[in-house]
Amino acid sequence: MSAPDDGALRVAEPPAEAPADPPAEVPAVRRRRGPYAKSAERRRAIVAAAFDVFATRGFRAASLREVAERVGMSQTTLLHHFPSKEELFLAVIASRDAVEPVLAPDALRGLAAEDPRIPAVRFADLITTQASFNEGVPGVIQLYAVLVGEGVTDDHPGRDYFAERFARMRAGYVVDLERLRDLGLLRDGVDPAIAAATIIALWDGIQLQWLYDADAVDMAAALRDYLALILPLPA
Amino acid sequence: MSAPDDGALRVAEPPAEAPADPPAEVPAVRRRRGPYAKSAERRRAIVAAAFDVFATRGFRAASLREVAERVGMSQTTLLHHFPSKEELFLAVIASRDAVEPVLAPDALRGLAAEDPRIPAVRFADLITTQASFNEGVPGVIQLYAVLVGEGVTDDHPGRDYFAERFARMRAGYVVDLERLRDLGLLRDGVDPAIAAATIIALWDGIQLQWLYDADAVDMAAALRDYLALILPLPA
Repeated sequence: MSAPDDGALRVAEPPAEAPADPPAEVPAVRRRRGPYAKSAERRRAIVAAAFDVFATRGFRAASLREVAERVGMSQTTLLHHFPSKEELFLAVIASRDAVEPVLAPDALRGLAAEDPRIPAVRFADLITTQASFNEGVPGVIQLYAVLVGEGVTDDHPGRDYFAERFARMRAGYVVDLERLRDLGLLRDGVDPAIAAATIIALWDGIQLQWLYDADAVDMAAALRDYLALILPLPA
Repeated sequence: MSAPDDGALRVAEPPAEAPADPPAEVPAVRRRRGPYAKSAERRRAIVAAAFDVFATRGFRAASLREVAERVGMSQTTLLHHFPSKEELFLAVIASRDAVEPVLAPDALRGLAAEDPRIPAVRFADLITTQASFNEGVPGVIQLYAVLVGEGVTDDHPGRDYFAERFARMRAGYVVDLERLRDLGLLRDGVDPAIAAATIIALWDGIQLQWLYDADAVDMAAALRDYLALILPLPA
């Protein structure tokens, strides 16, 4: 799979930055070049630059001056778009969450259309497909690793964000795993709440080891092997 | 179990800071109050203060001035003991690794002396005992989480340290798991290398979730449940 050096290049457009419909008085031909679109472009450029600076220096040590220099604007202009470092943090982290896998899952190949294991296979495949995709966007993984660690320090803007994100992710996986259990597809004795936290924990932890030595660990294999212990996945 | 607010208070003495035998000419009664012992005490105080500052602010944002103020000495005096922030980093991280669990494992209770599962139970119990112990030293977990995330940023003194630490830990668990496999105690199909990386990853990841919400996850239970999937542990 292709592996661009810089995950930021493949970051999808952050939802908050998406161009809205232009005001009615703007002629149709100028729609995508008007002042609003230009402002949105600048905001995207700032977010992309801040993404790299936060990922390579951390949030605290990052300076708005360095971000401004990278996009070739003054710090004053940058502050016009993002009045505080905290607001820039939230835009960067939103752009990270907007990254979507582009791979087409093919885990169902070879299974009969009526195979009762299909819901379990789909659940596992979404996770391992995302993990494989992430190997191609190391910048995205690095940004996350740096900010989620830094987020537990005093008065960090990531604290609430990550606490809520973890809670939301755990709750989502619990719903999925309880549904699988009700279908008879979760191994007896596996607690959906503990398994939900385990999937997220294993994923975070294996990404961290991968950042330190990409040749030493196989992220998708680690997740797949765990999921195969709790779900009836084909070998 | 008792849970002190500040893990640093329970950090064992770093090996590098242990008082050596005093020179022969020092009278015996002054041994522990001589200039060498005083210097070692000061180094320990600096390391304890730096531990807290790094854990609450991160390495990059931490200032030597703040560390010096906490121990009531000038920055010049601090630099006499630790000539660089990097050297202080290594001393702090060594003091973290010196933290040892004080719990007495009792997982073998109820097993017959000749139970063939004992090696697997011991292996799992060392891990879950350490995880339970860690809940009592949140400062130690927080320092680790902050530094291991920050360590992947450019030119960070933690990069080599954590890369080597991960490699050493994986290698250690691989040896243990291969031995258990040779005893017929590892579930068929489990790859010792992947399982070794998984134990470390799950541990790191669940500690991270715990730092964000200690009530939402049970670190020891997550590790025990995973280990029970790959080893023949008593229910």
